[in-house]
Amino acid sequence: MSGSTEGDLTKTGMSLKHDREWDYELDRIVEAIEERDASKVGLQFPEGLKRRGPQVADDLREVAPDDVTFMLSGQPCYGACDLDTYLMRRTDVFVHFGHTPMKESDSIVYVPLFSNVDPFPIMEESLEELPDPEEDPDVGLVTTAQHMNRFEEMTDWLEERGYEVHTRRGDDRLTKEGQVLGCNYASADIPADQVLYVGGGKFHPVGLAMEHPEKTVVIADPVNNAVSIAEHDQFLKQRYASVHKAMDAEKWGVIFCTKIGQGRWETAQEIVENNENAYLITMDEVTPDRLRNFDMDAFVNTGCPRITTDDGPRFHKPMLTPGEYEAAIGERPLDQIEFDTFHDTW
Amino acid sequence: MSGSTEGDLTKTGMSLKHDREWDYELDRIVEAIEERDASKVGLQFPEGLKRRGPQVADDLREVAPDDVTFMLSGQPCYGACDLDTYLMRRTDVFVHFGHTPMKESDSIVYVPLFSNVDPFPIMEESLEELPDPEEDPDVGLVTTAQHMNRFEEMTDWLEERGYEVHTRRGDDRLTKEGQVLGCNYASADIPADQVLYVGGGKFHPVGLAMEHPEKTVVIADPVNNAVSIAEHDQFLKQRYASVHKAMDAEKWGVIFCTKIGQGRWETAQEIVENNENAYLITMDEVTPDRLRNFDMDAFVNTGCPRITTDDGPRFHKPMLTPGEYEAAIGERPLDQIEFDTFHDTW
Repeated sequence: MSGSTEGDLTKTGMSLKHDREWDYELDRIVEAIEERDASKVGLQFPEGLKRRGPQVADDLREVAPDDVTFMLSGQPCYGACDLDTYLMRRTDVFVHFGHTPMKESDSIVYVPLFSNVDPFPIMEESLEELPDPEEDPDVGLVTTAQHMNRFEEMTDWLEERGYEVHTRRGDDRLTKEGQVLGCNYASADIPADQVLYVGGGKFHPVGLAMEHPEKTVVIADPVNNAVSIAEHDQFLKQRYASVHKAMDAEKWGVIFCTKIGQGRWETAQEIVENNENAYLITMDEVTPDRLRNFDMDAFVNTGCPRITTDDGPRFHKPMLTPGEYEAAIGERPLDQIEFDTFHDTW
Repeated sequence: MSGSTEGDLTKTGMSLKHDREWDYELDRIVEAIEERDASKVGLQFPEGLKRRGPQVADDLREVAPDDVTFMLSGQPCYGACDLDTYLMRRTDVFVHFGHTPMKESDSIVYVPLFSNVDPFPIMEESLEELPDPEEDPDVGLVTTAQHMNRFEEMTDWLEERGYEVHTRRGDDRLTKEGQVLGCNYASADIPADQVLYVGGGKFHPVGLAMEHPEKTVVIADPVNNAVSIAEHDQFLKQRYASVHKAMDAEKWGVIFCTKIGQGRWETAQEIVENNENAYLITMDEVTPDRLRNFDMDAFVNTGCPRITTDDGPRFHKPMLTPGEYEAAIGERPLDQIEFDTFHDTW
């Protein structure tokens, strides 16, 4: 398969990701193993890369001392806050692949796995959706961890074409300049009416558009080779529908997620203290199966917003963000629903 | 619905469990709350009783001091080893309902939830399947946690009818005389050719029959009001089929379960040390979804045997017990497959 940029691959199942070769930074891992004289090494991959784990373990076995045992984390992993803390605490070296650190830690080796897809052809196409720089040169630039390694190049590229590029590091939850997370878009708090998002997927740019409804969010997706404008109308309709369904709820399950970086204890406790029909439910993975056994009419998720908004329809009862809960019980106007974001680390 | 004993209810969906009223021992919980001046209280219920959680929390709220926050565990719970250790460590009082302690602990209040279904009508029926006590008086008696409270009565009842009842406490994993767990049948190591199992479900008696193939296991199920003989042929066929399928496997995923009471580290490590195509995978919940992302041909589960044998067919690749793995790689004759049991606590 070629890496050329012919046509939108969004619905073809032929995304350019098949062209990607990841750099697992084996040298850096082996160095950590030798430095710590490690005998147990834990490897954690995001869901989409779990199948590469055994090969990476094989490659490491070849170069690491013989007495090292490698362990692959089987815990679900969708982001930096899905740290397998059990494995981390019980291994001498623990490697987390594919995400940037939410907080630096000596006990974790982070291997970011940068994409090798060339972002510039699709950025070229995306210029058609941006205003002429002579009319309005201000544009924000954001991207995800996979493309962070070329962020400076992207900035230069836009500047060469006459734009004034606005970037910022966001808050403490974000490691890098211009980085967005599914739960944090603080790096787009910039003085420009347009934001160019370079990266795959719809979730991040739609979240961004919800968080900054006054801005136009242009998506340059180098993986699917497609340019589009982030539309949050459809998404908002889904959210309104969930809130409406939950308005009749009597019994509320209030989910407190026990994952590192996802616990909003004050938010959860405030809800149960003010609603005698609300019950605190604690869990790490929030899945439809786990909630089915609770006899609740609706749920409020104080953990990862992505669970609520992306997976929401998979749950048997309405699943709301804390802000949507306020709308459902009449404490906030329905038209003031916002995207749920996180602004702390852990 | 009446609690009478008319007919086998196994396939009617009308088991006598609907008649059950559980004793949640609220007094004992409130006592612990007051003694420890607790402000956070964790409640963990088995899956089948999770929907009772909110009502129990309500009842406790009424009698406990106002400043106590109750938290329901949303973690899956099928047995005493499914302890929600996160919640346990972060609450002042932690209550685990429905299972006996695998090991006594001051930090856990165990509420066993004894069944109030009368076991004697179905025991009466089960006598037809036992030999005449004048010919062979020796019979073993085992039951599950739900019926433990009447174990002595059951023993007396059988003795009054001329049987010599053999019971034992099993090993350290078992709290009570005559108790069996899904993973431990040491209480049936008694000198009798017959064992009477009083309790619901097929899993326990079939495990028992596999573990003690020389004995006849008679099931007196007071919940479904049915008597039967534990047949392990069908079960064994399934196991053989899984082993056969796994014989061609090249890449093996070796699951090390991180749950308290389920970790068999030596077993897991021995397999990966002796098979260069075996990879250690660590996880708490072992589910089909979590394993699908690993590119393996077969799995060995060193965690809960129930996952392997009960849920086995739900996994996309063969899932074997450690003993079955030995058969699949030719290190043990196929006809020496045994039921996988656990004999330690944690």
